[in-house]
Order: sequence, then structure tokens, then C-alpha cells
Amino acid sequence: MQLEHKHTETKNVVNRLSRAIGHLEAVKKMVIDGKDCTDILIQLSAVNAAINNTGKIILVDHIRHCVADAVEKEDHTVLDQLEDAINKFIR
Amino acid sequence: MQLEHKHTETKNVVNRLSRAIGHLEAVKKMVIDGKDCTDILIQLSAVNAAINNTGKIILVDHIRHCVADAVEKEDHTVLDQLEDAINKFIR
Repeated sequence: MQLEHKHTETKNVVNRLSRAIGHLEAVKKMVIDGKDCTDILIQLSAVNAAINNTGKIILVDHIRHCVADAVEKEDHTVLDQLEDAINKFIR
Repeated sequence: MQLEHKHTETKNVVNRLSRAIGHLEAVKKMVIDGKDCTDILIQLSAVNAAINNTGKIILVDHIRHCVADAVEKEDHTVLDQLEDAINKFIR
């Protein structure tokens, strides 16, 4: 499904995902190089935190734009989909 | 710090990290292409779950090898470092 409306955080989200990919590449190199397990776990935890923060930005951007639009148009399927996404994203 | 002992899951961990990197690249493309936010959040959640599972494998491998070695040698700094890594990794 393609979006019809604008988001304001797309560039920010793409930059954060690029950094997370670079970070994960660095962790992979640590594993290949046999670096200390505890250091690897700490870096992996930092990547997870970065992905979570990026998810929060996507969620807020989505609520500010897509959801606001959908509520105005009384399109409740968007709210159902959002609830599903939140249930899957927040554990 | 470099490890002196062998792990048995290194190839498995490297493969899982490679897949997580590929998955994250696909999510970045979804954002650039303006795909639906809820779909993006669901995929991002799947990447986080994959990273968590990889972390668990690293942790178990670490306990089975590094920690077992350290306990035999009565090296308790390894246990302290492990506790620190667990506190940072498990939220």
C-alpha cells in the first residue's frame, strides 16, 4: 500500500536506518574478528535501541499525518492497522 | 579485547547478522519508496526480534565457552562483565 500524504521525518528516518545498518556491519566485523562477547552484546543492544527510536519517530510521524488524515475522513481501518502495528512493535 | 577460546556459533551469528542487515536495507527502501507506515513498523519489529535472537545465541555461546573457561580459572572479572552486558542487552 502506497501513501498519499507527506511525512516530515522521512530524511531523518532514512539517515537513522543508514547509521543502524553501518553499526550492524561493524558488529558483524567484531564477530568475525573474534572480539569480546560482552562488547558485541553491548553494541548489539545499542543497534536495537537505535532501531526502536527510529520506530518511535515513524510512529509519531504516522500519527501526525496518516492517522490525522484518516480520522478526518472517518477511515477507521487505518486505526485498526495502527493498533496492530503498535502491538507488534512495542513488546 | 580479543578472545583466546573458540565459539561454536560464529558462522550462525554472522549469517544472522547478514540477514538482519539485508532486512534493514529493505526497510530503508520501504521508507524511501513511501510504503505504508504500519508495514514498515512491522518489518522493523521483525529486525529487532532477529537481532534479539542473535544476541541470545551470542550470550549462550559466551556462557558455554568464555564463562565456563573463566570460572575454571577463577577469573571473576568475566562474570562481572557478563552481568554488565546482560543488564544492557535485556530490557
